Formats: sequence, structure tokens, C-alpha cells
Amino acid sequence: MRTAYYAQMAELNTLLARLCELSGTAMERSTAALLSADLAVAEQVISDHEHIQRMSGVAEERAFGLLARQAPVAGDLRSIVTTFQVVADIERMGALALHVAKVARRRHPMHALPPEVEGYFADMGALAVAMAGNAAAALTSQNVDDARRLQVDDDAMDALHEHLFTVLSDRTWDHGIGAGVDVTLLGRYYERFADHAVLIGHRVVFQATGHPPDRSIESPTQFLPG
Amino acid sequence: MRTAYYAQMAELNTLLARLCELSGTAMERSTAALLSADLAVAEQVISDHEHIQRMSGVAEERAFGLLARQAPVAGDLRSIVTTFQVVADIERMGALALHVAKVARRRHPMHALPPEVEGYFADMGALAVAMAGNAAAALTSQNVDDARRLQVDDDAMDALHEHLFTVLSDRTWDHGIGAGVDVTLLGRYYERFADHAVLIGHRVVFQATGHPPDRSIESPTQFLPG
Repeated sequence: MRTAYYAQMAELNTLLARLCELSGTAMERSTAALLSADLAVAEQVISDHEHIQRMSGVAEERAFGLLARQAPVAGDLRSIVTTFQVVADIERMGALALHVAKVARRRHPMHALPPEVEGYFADMGALAVAMAGNAAAALTSQNVDDARRLQVDDDAMDALHEHLFTVLSDRTWDHGIGAGVDVTLLGRYYERFADHAVLIGHRVVFQATGHPPDRSIESPTQFLPG
Repeated sequence: MRTAYYAQMAELNTLLARLCELSGTAMERSTAALLSADLAVAEQVISDHEHIQRMSGVAEERAFGLLARQAPVAGDLRSIVTTFQVVADIERMGALALHVAKVARRRHPMHALPPEVEGYFADMGALAVAMAGNAAAALTSQNVDDARRLQVDDDAMDALHEHLFTVLSDRTWDHGIGAGVDVTLLGRYYERFADHAVLIGHRVVFQATGHPPDRSIESPTQFLPG
């Protein structure tokens, strides 16, 4: 019984890892669409989003199945409940990638990003994709160190986000308020994407150790221009 | 056994309703702090946030207890899993109220809001508080109509949010990019607060009917200027 449970739990975590990678792929494409004002790539992310949602539903059903059939207790019970939270995190990461794609589509054929912030978004995009990959690796390995490493990436994301606002609040910004609104929201989407990857890391630590995840989720800096 | 389960489930929903009201109170105070640049009120929201987090932990523990002791099946099992999601929504609502309070604190003694958008935030704040109250009522009553009514409020929130961006993207905006960033993020906080209240409504519908909640959570408009 327990052996079957652990095998099915590992299978479920593998499915979650694949889903997490899909959200990373979505963010990779969204970032490419944003940086090159590529409508076709933006449209692809938008239409692929349904697939992430459908697979999330499948993952949830498997978790329900495990819960119902295996009737786990104590720590195992908590692990399964955690998987529902991981599904929610991944869905949110997919939704945030979708938002980025929608901004790229809305501004097409114009570029949503003024040239001086493109580098920040290239870096934030690469970091977000890496974090989705690291969260996926942590889900598969159930390795606490893999999970904890996400925090270091998140600090880098926060630093990029902070620098972005420095550029935005610079007096020489001459792209108008419309571009400012876009850049503000886009920056927030990447930052939140990273937060959810970190949360997945916390949840893996919880699954592996029984130590409850930190409830103060959001990146502490929450920087806004002075 | 089932009677005990239903009684404990009703108790848990009552606790969740109280928590939901607390998040509404936090948003009410944050909005007041924002509109009147009141540092003391902002500080109160910030220090009260820990209480919401602690109570969320208590609610989660009760849900685990129910799951472990009552070993519910089928629909009852799904209902309990839903309560973990409701806790997460309420925590997020509390965190969004906290963000608003932090903006008010950061800008003090200045006002974060230019005069021409104050009315929008007064209205969005009142609507957010009403929605937290309606979500709490739906949790207690388990009434599907109460839950569905939240969608109407959310449409009103989206309309306010859209108008806000119209003001923001107006050529006569002369408050600089810094105020533009604040207003953009603040608008997003209220919109997301409302989204989570709507999600709680969806979850109550799911608990009451077994009909799965809509996976396309976010408000469809996602309006951005121009």
C-alpha cells in the first residue's frame, strides 16, 4: 500500500515537474515575443495556455485520486495537499507568462519596451525560465538543496526588478506614461512568476522535511521608486 | 461520523468567513491610509497582517485535522481540499491590502495619489471591502447565489480599473512617472484582491454543487492604456 502510494506520488511530482517546465517555456516565448515584437510567438503562448490549464486539471485529478484511494495519513497527507498548492503555483506562472504575451500582442507591431529597459527584461526572462527549470528539478529530485537554491535566484530577480524601477523613475524617461504603465506591470509579472517558483521550492522542502513553508511569501523588497 | 464532519466543516467555514472579513477590514484601513496619508493607520494594517497569517495557519491546521480524522470521501473530500485554496485566497487578499498600506507608508507625509484618481481608489476600496464581505457571507451561507453575485461586483471593479487607466494615459497627466508607477501597481492590487474574492465565490459554488470552478480566473479585460 505504502509502496504504491510512494510510486504514485513520485509519478505525480514528475507530472508537476513537466507542467512547471511548460510554464517556463511559455515565459521564454513570451519574453522573445516581447523583445522582438513577434506576434506569432505571442499568439502561440496565448493558444498554448489552454494546454497548461488542461494539464493542471489532470494533475489535480490525480492528486484527488491518490488522496481518495490511498487514504494517506500524517506527513503523507500533508504532502498530497501540498501538490494542490503546487498546481495552483504553476497555473499562476502560466497565467503570468500569458499576461506578458498579451502585452506583446496588444502593442504589436510596436515594441512594448523602450530600448533602455530591454536588457532588464532579457535578464528577468532568462532568470524566470531558469527558476521554472530549477523548481521542476526540485519537484523531481525532492532535493532540499535544489529547492533552497531558488531563493538565491529570487534575490537576483528582486535586484533586477529594483534596477528596472531606477531606470523608470529616472528624470530622462521620455517614453510617456503609457510605456511606463506597461513596464511597471511587466516587471511585476516577472517578479511574481519568480515568487511562485520560490513557493514551489518551499513546498518541496515541506514535502521532504515536514517543516512548514514560510508564510511570508512575497519578496521582501517590494521596491518602488523613491 | 458524517454529522460530526458536517458540523466541523461548517465551523471551519465560519472561521474562514471571519478571516475573509479581516482581509476586508485590512483593505478598508489601507484605503483610508492611502486616501488621507495616515501613517498610523497604515502601520496598523502592517502590524495586523501577522494576525491574518497566524489565523490562516490555524484554519489550515483545522482542515488537516478534518481530513485526517474524518477521512471524507468523494464530494466531501473535494470540499476540504477547497478550504485550503480558500485559505490561500484570503492570505493573498491580506497581502494585497498590506501592499497598499506599504505604499501609503512609503509616501508619507506625501499623498501617494494625485487628486484626480482619489475618487477611483475610494470606489475601488469600497467595492473591495464589500466583496470581502460578500465572500465571507457566501462561505457562511454556502449559498450559490451569494457566491455568484461576486461576479457582478468584479465587473464593476474591472470597469473602475479600466477608467483609472484612461485617466492615467491621458495626455494631461502631469504627476510624473513615479506617481504613475504607484497608481498602476495600486490599481493592480485592488483588481487582484477582487479576483481572489471571486475565486472564493467559485469555490463555494464548487463546495455546494460539485461543479468545478472555472479555471480562467483572471478578469478577462486586462485593460492597459492605448
